[in-house]
Amino acid sequence: MTDKDFKEKLKEINQFKINKDTDITSLIKSLLGTGFNAKRLALACEIYKEMVDNKDCVKFFGLAGAMVPVGMQGIIYDFIKEGYIDILVTTGANLTHDIAETLGYHHLQGSVSISDISDIDLHKQEMNRIYDVFMPNKVYEGIEDFVSQLKIPDNEMTVSSFLKYLGEQLPENSNSVIKICAEKNVPIFCPAFTDSGLALQLGFHHQKLNLNHFKDMLDMVNIAWDAKIAGICIIGGGVPKNFIFQSMQFCPNSATYAIQITMDRPEPGGLSGATLREAMSWGKVNEKAKYSTVIADATIALPLIFWYLKKMC
Amino acid sequence: MTDKDFKEKLKEINQFKINKDTDITSLIKSLLGTGFNAKRLALACEIYKEMVDNKDCVKFFGLAGAMVPVGMQGIIYDFIKEGYIDILVTTGANLTHDIAETLGYHHLQGSVSISDISDIDLHKQEMNRIYDVFMPNKVYEGIEDFVSQLKIPDNEMTVSSFLKYLGEQLPENSNSVIKICAEKNVPIFCPAFTDSGLALQLGFHHQKLNLNHFKDMLDMVNIAWDAKIAGICIIGGGVPKNFIFQSMQFCPNSATYAIQITMDRPEPGGLSGATLREAMSWGKVNEKAKYSTVIADATIALPLIFWYLKKMC
Amino acid sequence: MTDKDFKEKLKEINQFKINKDTDITSLIKSLLGTGFNAKRLALACEIYKEMVDNKDCVKFFGLAGAMVPVGMQGIIYDFIKEGYIDILVTTGANLTHDIAETLGYHHLQGSVSISDISDIDLHKQEMNRIYDVFMPNKVYEGIEDFVSQLKIPDNEMTVSSFLKYLGEQLPENSNSVIKICAEKNVPIFCPAFTDSGLALQLGFHHQKLNLNHFKDMLDMVNIAWDAKIAGICIIGGGVPKNFIFQSMQFCPNSATYAIQITMDRPEPGGLSGATLREAMSWGKVNEKAKYSTVIADATIALPLIFWYLKKMC
Amino acid sequence: MTDKDFKEKLKEINQFKINKDTDITSLIKSLLGTGFNAKRLALACEIYKEMVDNKDCVKFFGLAGAMVPVGMQGIIYDFIKEGYIDILVTTGANLTHDIAETLGYHHLQGSVSISDISDIDLHKQEMNRIYDVFMPNKVYEGIEDFVSQLKIPDNEMTVSSFLKYLGEQLPENSNSVIKICAEKNVPIFCPAFTDSGLALQLGFHHQKLNLNHFKDMLDMVNIAWDAKIAGICIIGGGVPKNFIFQSMQFCPNSATYAIQITMDRPEPGGLSGATLREAMSWGKVNEKAKYSTVIADATIALPLIFWYLKKMC
Repeated sequence: MTDKDFKEKLKEINQFKINKDTDITSLIKSLLGTGFNAKRLALACEIYKEMVDNKDCVKFFGLAGAMVPVGMQGIIYDFIKEGYIDILVTTGANLTHDIAETLGYHHLQGSVSISDISDIDLHKQEMNRIYDVFMPNKVYEGIEDFVSQLKIPDNEMTVSSFLKYLGEQLPENSNSVIKICAEKNVPIFCPAFTDSGLALQLGFHHQKLNLNHFKDMLDMVNIAWDAKIAGICIIGGGVPKNFIFQSMQFCPNSATYAIQITMDRPEPGGLSGATLREAMSWGKVNEKAKYSTVIADATIALPLIFWYLKKMC
Repeated sequence: MTDKDFKEKLKEINQFKINKDTDITSLIKSLLGTGFNAKRLALACEIYKEMVDNKDCVKFFGLAGAMVPVGMQGIIYDFIKEGYIDILVTTGANLTHDIAETLGYHHLQGSVSISDISDIDLHKQEMNRIYDVFMPNKVYEGIEDFVSQLKIPDNEMTVSSFLKYLGEQLPENSNSVIKICAEKNVPIFCPAFTDSGLALQLGFHHQKLNLNHFKDMLDMVNIAWDAKIAGICIIGGGVPKNFIFQSMQFCPNSATYAIQITMDRPEPGGLSGATLREAMSWGKVNEKAKYSTVIADATIALPLIFWYLKKMC
Repeated sequence: MTDKDFKEKLKEINQFKINKDTDITSLIKSLLGTGFNAKRLALACEIYKEMVDNKDCVKFFGLAGAMVPVGMQGIIYDFIKEGYIDILVTTGANLTHDIAETLGYHHLQGSVSISDISDIDLHKQEMNRIYDVFMPNKVYEGIEDFVSQLKIPDNEMTVSSFLKYLGEQLPENSNSVIKICAEKNVPIFCPAFTDSGLALQLGFHHQKLNLNHFKDMLDMVNIAWDAKIAGICIIGGGVPKNFIFQSMQFCPNSATYAIQITMDRPEPGGLSGATLREAMSWGKVNEKAKYSTVIADATIALPLIFWYLKKMC
Repeated sequence: MTDKDFKEKLKEINQFKINKDTDITSLIKSLLGTGFNAKRLALACEIYKEMVDNKDCVKFFGLAGAMVPVGMQGIIYDFIKEGYIDILVTTGANLTHDIAETLGYHHLQGSVSISDISDIDLHKQEMNRIYDVFMPNKVYEGIEDFVSQLKIPDNEMTVSSFLKYLGEQLPENSNSVIKICAEKNVPIFCPAFTDSGLALQLGFHHQKLNLNHFKDMLDMVNIAWDAKIAGICIIGGGVPKNFIFQSMQFCPNSATYAIQITMDRPEPGGLSGATLREAMSWGKVNEKAKYSTVIADATIALPLIFWYLKKMC
């Protein structure tokens, strides 16, 4: 590339304005002309839109972090309802908290002044803390009642089949992630299922249960293998990120689209903070993929992305 | 507080929805019912609105980071134009880049693929990199031409007086932070002014210049002393944060409102990441203050706050 | 507490010196008199020493992150060999890389200049990148050969039993974590086992395998229940952290000692960055526990802690 | 580069051991064979050693963060005493705290249990908090007594000349950074001097003071210009980092060696977290420079680097 070519390819930064006509789509378009994480967020919105518009694209969604307790359950529900997610990979914690809310229990706001209460006092009040969100410990009793009366049809079914069964048992609810996945036939994978309060209750009450984690793993590889076009959106990182990526690694078509919303960074070498470019070296993300990593709290970025998709798709 | 009182004070987390009627004000209201940084951002919006609504409130704004190069110049300009800032404390870098844009030069987008160019090649092309934003080195020549022909009225004026003079010399421009501050009589303090390309050019061409930094410091203390109600918004951290806070420390009225948007954290002990509560121990922030620290990239949070204020104030 | 009492309890910061007599134990003692993460690291060293000295203490060790690829395999091996770990909870990735090294394969240093090679080129060279560490893809072939010839005695054994069996099959090696755990009867729990290259190979070659993850979970709860005194050291966070903590939650004796080495922070609300104090609200860490979270790259902190223990225990 | 050449250049990761013969030099040598921040720290040690060994190298040291309050005053003192620093650029805060300690006042350890005291209570006790370090507010009275009786020889001297004068007025002390700099003729630059408690006291008591910040800036440029070989070590970031780098930018010889110890990261676009490679695009760091950025708390990394230098130089 000659110097002149290089310089002509560069666009001027957009010193944009917000005015009375601004809406989410014009804001995102404006941010696309800036830099740093504003541009990355705008790019993530555009890429996700393309994933939705591309009818051949299988959309994998990795969900880590305490997104249900903090108030993002309804947004995730609507991602699924609107068809923005085809395969959900998540943590046992999000499933546990989803059941709690679905059964009518609630997470609570630790307001700025109340968060000053010591963790020792919270323990005395049987109140579990998730940063500034509280969960009364008695929620576990409700989950236990629900779990103990389940008539599990097959002790060796996969985790994803079990979660579909579970969704069918849950009451109607306009926010339940497990329920809407069951209704929309969106499989939920949860590779670290036994790392959760839900699994503990299951284990205590159904001692013969031996859900087949290996079959889940192979099912996921098959889904990835069959995807003509694969698009990935990672919230947080952790096991959901790696599980989606390991399935891509051995496929004929690695990911064509990749988005990650995280506060983790690459320097300490962990997978959660690894760049999406690093995933190219492994063949998990295609070398021609469109991708964007947004360094942002998902509680801010996720609603904005949804809002954009809802307007545009 | 009895257990019952404590529990009754707690509100349920809001599992909110986004729909076709959502606008920025309803979104922020929804986020106020959640947790983590979404709630903190919503709280920051509310606090800033209260700062604007409270006619006695003197609004101090600390601006660090490369906000002008990245495309936030127009937003900061409008913060000032709308009267949301009474006192601006910033870095020499933001002023240097503001002059560059005001003189008609532009920062450039390093697009995702182009950012792969090596820094060594960029240097050969005389292109300076600020993360994914580029600035052609020749911009300095334009600044030099402007600076060299200045007839500075007083070599020992304060930095803030000099910046007002500078604003008056700059051409009309709908984004220039220095210009709008001069027009609106918003003083700009820049304690580390000599740590900038602008000051270097001034020093090279005006060797007798000895702007009185100490008088700036005392002027700032007087402004803080006289403020009946003080409200603070910090973008980033650094010298602007400390300079505003040190002025509050010895005042009869420490800050009544305090907002910080930053990616820095408290654990390594630096001031940029210090919590606003820590500032209470110093008497910089009032113990009854409303405050919110948002861990977010300012390129995402600042436009959202402005958008909210523009609708609500 | 009266003002006087409060002030008298405070110790002066130690403006320490390093000289020719300094060794790791005197350095750690000096850092204990400082603040920020130096003090936290020194405290972590002291707490771990107390865990080792206390013969009733069951030492749980949670290991996330790419610690084996980066060169910490020998240190972790020695933690186990010296008896500093009683129960290991780790990721499938660390186990996969441990087998690779044990079978005679090597991870490679991407030197500062070589790391400039693009991920696309690395993919062409079949070289997988883990930040600045590379792993040739052909390593998987060696793992496959090893895995395919295994005669697994029981398809429904627990993951921890399987890992013991695996350790017995591995060749002698002075660094192998799986091998030394088998030899020293240190159980390895891996709740997200199917999230790994090792499990993929197992799944491909042993299609009837259905390792019993639920029994692992219940075994872990029993171990935690029986521990008279529990001490926890967490490297990174992730599933290993949560799995240890969930086992503590329902025990008569929650953790008496707790250490975490991590670069994650609490503000985004994820479990990896949650403070050890938060764990007190859940009853996972005892309210009288000695604890220290060190915000540090484990590749720096872990060798220092081991060095200190080796000298002191 | 052919595939074979590329692969042959790569070294195996060193799965090192720590044993009874390990000392700081052998540990650093071992870490050099690993990756992530352990390798970067080892590289920083090696580079700094080369800076000291190279008699033509002018060693610039940028010191931000609360390093004096936290207990690193003695280490920084010894860096200067041993000749490891030729030019010091720091913050007004570090100078203020250095004077406090030199006058016999002390910073205090907020122990883990005491740090639970609320900031509101600390304020009532006139105790200022710097993360987990406390400073009694009365320290300011001691500084005021010292500052008020100064007979400043020239109101328009540079900040660096003033700091040399100040060092001469301070009592003998085996830790004072300002004192040892005066004795060893190591100039101290402090571009944001008026952003400090020290400057506030000076301003209140010496109203005619107008230290010439511009001349400091030009002096620094001259020193950088004259340096045959320039080596840079940055602790933290902030104004000290930028001030050193801006002086390098217009010099015939940009930096040959560059080290940064920081917890800041590049993604939000601020200068503190910018990579040393980015500085190459600006011509601040030479394209052939040896450099290492260590993502670490300086309270851990700085003593290790000093310990290594003390043994090796």
